[in-house]
Amino acid sequence: MKTRSQIPSDWKNYRAVLEYDGSVFFGFQRQPNHPTIQEAFETALSKLFSQKISIGSASGRTDTGVHALGQVVHFFAPSKFQDRDLKKGLNALLPKSIAVRGLETVPKKFHARYDAKRKIYEYRIWNDLVRSPLCGKRAVHIPYALDFKAMKQAAKILTGKHDFRSFCASDPSGKEKTTVRKIFRITLSKKASLIVMTFEANGFLYHMVRNLVGTLVEVGRKKIKIQAIKTILKSKDRRSAGFTAPADGLCLVNVTY
Amino acid sequence: MKTRSQIPSDWKNYRAVLEYDGSVFFGFQRQPNHPTIQEAFETALSKLFSQKISIGSASGRTDTGVHALGQVVHFFAPSKFQDRDLKKGLNALLPKSIAVRGLETVPKKFHARYDAKRKIYEYRIWNDLVRSPLCGKRAVHIPYALDFKAMKQAAKILTGKHDFRSFCASDPSGKEKTTVRKIFRITLSKKASLIVMTFEANGFLYHMVRNLVGTLVEVGRKKIKIQAIKTILKSKDRRSAGFTAPADGLCLVNVTY
Repeated sequence: MKTRSQIPSDWKNYRAVLEYDGSVFFGFQRQPNHPTIQEAFETALSKLFSQKISIGSASGRTDTGVHALGQVVHFFAPSKFQDRDLKKGLNALLPKSIAVRGLETVPKKFHARYDAKRKIYEYRIWNDLVRSPLCGKRAVHIPYALDFKAMKQAAKILTGKHDFRSFCASDPSGKEKTTVRKIFRITLSKKASLIVMTFEANGFLYHMVRNLVGTLVEVGRKKIKIQAIKTILKSKDRRSAGFTAPADGLCLVNVTY
Repeated sequence: MKTRSQIPSDWKNYRAVLEYDGSVFFGFQRQPNHPTIQEAFETALSKLFSQKISIGSASGRTDTGVHALGQVVHFFAPSKFQDRDLKKGLNALLPKSIAVRGLETVPKKFHARYDAKRKIYEYRIWNDLVRSPLCGKRAVHIPYALDFKAMKQAAKILTGKHDFRSFCASDPSGKEKTTVRKIFRITLSKKASLIVMTFEANGFLYHMVRNLVGTLVEVGRKKIKIQAIKTILKSKDRRSAGFTAPADGLCLVNVTY
């Protein structure tokens, strides 16, 4: 990847909004010998521009199996195409499992990760004795009875500005300066057997949504008491919270700048 | 398959409601060298009963790629299990792409095909310039602008009791005595880019839903006029109606007895 100073002055900075089916990729970030979203996207970019083009950054790296309706990336490239044609060209070259939903030229200083102000994640649970082949890889099957009301109350306690260290996997990059985040809302909806949990925050720590979901599910199964949520937050100890819910149910819905 | 007279008198007749992801099968009906729903289901049944058990009938045979939320089958088998345990056992043995949503003992005279009174099919269209990787194989991508209001008006004309020969593929079995069917309702709903069409009738001819959808789409594209629908019905000629919409968007939702 070129550093910003190496980028030719006549190149433009582009922001693209990506939808992808995470079940066929080994996560966003490029890695050897495994298909990743980054690799597929950079391959299409490089083909279109007939030279190696790399992504500057994504809003965040989604793990293996995690889906996206609104992942945002930025990249620098020659100003060879109209935005509309670039979007069309990329959609023609990308595999069916990825689509460019939006594409626009942005100021050179725009950074998909550093400039993100809010993110929305959705987590889907198929809560029925029998699995659902048609919900398939977009929802996690939980066959146990869940106390939905208790889960809603626990979600209320988690909403707001807190130190979420208890819900954070040990940071592999060691880059997180603070584990304080502000959750604007957690909404839980239930339609027949499908439970959808929506999380909106100014940012999420590594595995934070999945650990929040795991904890809420344990509240639903009465393995964690509603009032224990406060204690878990205070403990700042990952071991005090619930399990890490599987990646399949998770989807990055939107990033606001 | 045993004929009814060959079935041991102490065997029971079972009705099962199946959900399946049609994208991984070559249709319902067993055929050599290709995975089918019938084969997968009979394999699980035979394993469970430690002897060859065949399906008596399905409510109808879904084509390659067609999904089901409520396909109904009946089969005769020894009264070895409680209904609940039989359901559990089948779900444990079936591939993830098929699930038994319901199972019960029914009178011996029950026949999944002949006794069906009403069927509901759903057809999904992703109507957006850009495809949707997450709607994937459950919706057909139609990138053209569609006149939704015109489609609704055409659907109204198709509702009711008509001779649907113009919407019927040549019957491969030659078994259809009449091509008259009664459509109780066709509803069209649109939420963002997703159009869902629901068809409820006392029965459907071969490819009938897909031909109705193809015709409604051509009305939406203004290639067929609303008033032409009456002429198409009257013509009793398959060539007068629209194209056969792809199987991927189709799902058998419910069968009433």
